[in-house]
Amino acid sequence: MMHAIDLIRKKRDGGELTADEIQFIVRGAASQAIPEAQLAAWLMAAFLRGLSSAELDALTTAMRFSGVTFDHAGLGCVTVDKHSTGGVGDKTSFLVAPIAAAAGLAVPMISGRALGHTGGTLDKLESIPGYRTQLSLDEARRVMDECGATIIGQTKDLVPADRVLYDLRDRTGTVESPWLICASIMSKKLAAGLQGLVLDVKTGSGAFLRDYEQARFLAGLMVETGERAGTRTAALMTSMDQPLGRFAGNWIEIAESIELLAGKRHPLSEDLLELSLILAGWMIHLGGKAKDAEAGKAIASEKIADGSALGHFRKMVAAQGGDLDALYKGFGFHRPKFRRELLAERSGIVQRVDTTAVGWAVQRLGAGRERAGEAVAAHAGLEVHFKIGSRINAGKTLCTLFAEEESRFEEPEKLLREAIVIGDEAVQPPPLVREIVTAENACSG
Amino acid sequence: MMHAIDLIRKKRDGGELTADEIQFIVRGAASQAIPEAQLAAWLMAAFLRGLSSAELDALTTAMRFSGVTFDHAGLGCVTVDKHSTGGVGDKTSFLVAPIAAAAGLAVPMISGRALGHTGGTLDKLESIPGYRTQLSLDEARRVMDECGATIIGQTKDLVPADRVLYDLRDRTGTVESPWLICASIMSKKLAAGLQGLVLDVKTGSGAFLRDYEQARFLAGLMVETGERAGTRTAALMTSMDQPLGRFAGNWIEIAESIELLAGKRHPLSEDLLELSLILAGWMIHLGGKAKDAEAGKAIASEKIADGSALGHFRKMVAAQGGDLDALYKGFGFHRPKFRRELLAERSGIVQRVDTTAVGWAVQRLGAGRERAGEAVAAHAGLEVHFKIGSRINAGKTLCTLFAEEESRFEEPEKLLREAIVIGDEAVQPPPLVREIVTAENACSG
Repeated sequence: MMHAIDLIRKKRDGGELTADEIQFIVRGAASQAIPEAQLAAWLMAAFLRGLSSAELDALTTAMRFSGVTFDHAGLGCVTVDKHSTGGVGDKTSFLVAPIAAAAGLAVPMISGRALGHTGGTLDKLESIPGYRTQLSLDEARRVMDECGATIIGQTKDLVPADRVLYDLRDRTGTVESPWLICASIMSKKLAAGLQGLVLDVKTGSGAFLRDYEQARFLAGLMVETGERAGTRTAALMTSMDQPLGRFAGNWIEIAESIELLAGKRHPLSEDLLELSLILAGWMIHLGGKAKDAEAGKAIASEKIADGSALGHFRKMVAAQGGDLDALYKGFGFHRPKFRRELLAERSGIVQRVDTTAVGWAVQRLGAGRERAGEAVAAHAGLEVHFKIGSRINAGKTLCTLFAEEESRFEEPEKLLREAIVIGDEAVQPPPLVREIVTAENACSG
Repeated sequence: MMHAIDLIRKKRDGGELTADEIQFIVRGAASQAIPEAQLAAWLMAAFLRGLSSAELDALTTAMRFSGVTFDHAGLGCVTVDKHSTGGVGDKTSFLVAPIAAAAGLAVPMISGRALGHTGGTLDKLESIPGYRTQLSLDEARRVMDECGATIIGQTKDLVPADRVLYDLRDRTGTVESPWLICASIMSKKLAAGLQGLVLDVKTGSGAFLRDYEQARFLAGLMVETGERAGTRTAALMTSMDQPLGRFAGNWIEIAESIELLAGKRHPLSEDLLELSLILAGWMIHLGGKAKDAEAGKAIASEKIADGSALGHFRKMVAAQGGDLDALYKGFGFHRPKFRRELLAERSGIVQRVDTTAVGWAVQRLGAGRERAGEAVAAHAGLEVHFKIGSRINAGKTLCTLFAEEESRFEEPEKLLREAIVIGDEAVQPPPLVREIVTAENACSG
């Protein structure tokens, strides 16, 4: 007979729990058989003691199978996915999912909502009139079968243990543990039975994990956990030192993505396009459709050039109820009630950006939410007219702000003015990808 | 505005909490304003990170003043007390409280019940027909005023934060922290506004803290915490390698104590008498009635020799409703329904005793309880006919077992047979007091 108290003591004293013991905790969490106080004590002990590889695998596996899984073994398709640790202006999902689908892969992407200073893939998609993110797993499977990709929200019956544990971690100061973050992310990704997974692990001023070493450690854990579970996994250590692309918000991010899928380029969207092609290249490679990521990237470029990626995106939007007319209009459909220009107060070169503050500015404009369950404004957000290293003249527009109420501008303007640092030094833009972590170099232990 | 989550994170990351922050947690625990899950996470972080001296003082103080205090500032008396970390056959309270009272001190002793393998002072006292342990603080104050000593149970309004936190620690694997143990013990003792306090910190096979270094660390923390709070405090590191005295149970422990108070000695009670005199000597010294503990011990011996200690004990028992007739009868009042002799299977010398197992045997005989709230048998228990180093002949009685039901004997017999190790080597009995910890040598930091 297992008792939670013994497992708390074992972890507290630095012992290694067996897979059965970890499963007891995860099941007890999901079924509420173990009281929150005991789970909280166990989580804090795990936070401070860390987990061994075997414990991490056991935790990830127990969480993965705590509910139904979204497995496609019978569909005769190769499934791949991409996961990002979250950023500002990060809209790569809208490019990589249809690109991979166009390359003959299946993408069962389960996404999240705006959280804190970062935007939410679901909120962005819901700015397309009619787009439904809350599909049943059967509906989602049909969309994927038909369109090659589906982007949906978490369902109640998928990895329920993560919902319980994440909620508790949020209240008990046990969120920022690399092992617990890894188990939370990987259990949800592995529940989709993927053949290949590319992780976009962001660092820099707008990332949740700003410290490079910590982010690298997490990336190693995730790659090892994925590989040990039989999913080919790679992680890209990418820069979140400034917003990705030109826009941050909801509809304007969709519009920027459609432009790129349609082959229309813009100097300030080049980083977004490049990162999307690299990520898609890895998906195509890990899914077995290219001998390496470089070859995958070339295929990704082709899928944009021949229009097939855009076709897959439109097809998916239509299948999930989205209005294709709005999609055709792109920026023409952008209709915020109010606009405000933020002008440069001095001439010079953009030195650095506090991207977390930029994210909060976007949230305060109405594109994000203060608390779970709140509605977001589809057309609120920000256009950024510079990159780190850009030369700016005094009086020229740094950012254009969009909101549904005029009173929304004051705080974001202040945040942005402090967040964007203009100086005299010449600055090299930060590298888009700092390191690629694969099974060969993951080595977190 | 303080938030529990920030204080969890601060402790988790090794920061030092301010006194206000610690008070916020303690008040939140007592008022249930902070949810158990958050308290549990904080307790585990404190368990694994430890507390600084300032944090320990703040925790002890906040707990001490979380309810009413049992302070005697207006009574014109000098209050002293003794606390034991718990053992088997430990009945020193029944000797030291009346001895200190006879020496002109006031002893407001708040005691506990049987817990696990250790006996409970209150359970033992309640084996005296009529003795009431649940007095109000006003009643207890009157008894102490009249008799010099009172031994009562914890009341609901005294240190309520400890009750909440201890209960939670018990469920979340955060009991065995020296800092949390120190705050729990010292907050309750300091709530009685003591001038002097002697701590009996037990180590060895029957102690909660078996490891000497851990127990010594706890003793140092408690002495420093007491001294910093203005209470003269000393700790004796004592042996719990075998039961203390001849008897372990309820009434038989009272009877053994009365014999000693009456000046009747027995070779197997000598360790109990000696430890009681040493402890009482420290109480008398710390209470300012003797220049050192040695002089205090001499006074303690006098108070037994002149019968005044026994007189104070009888007076206290009568004042708390106890039947003096039973007390006069002593062992003559001992009336267990069943007795069983445990015979030595071989001749030899007692090498060592698993005193925790002996304690469990006493508990299973009916003298202790399986769970809180259960009744205990007043006349169940154990007489021990040896000490470590005693020569025993095969077939002679090792222990006499007492119980109210014959079915109670089987398990204790088995436990005792395994617990008492007889061999051929000559063995030195363990020293009664291994070290004395005072302000001069406490140095826990």
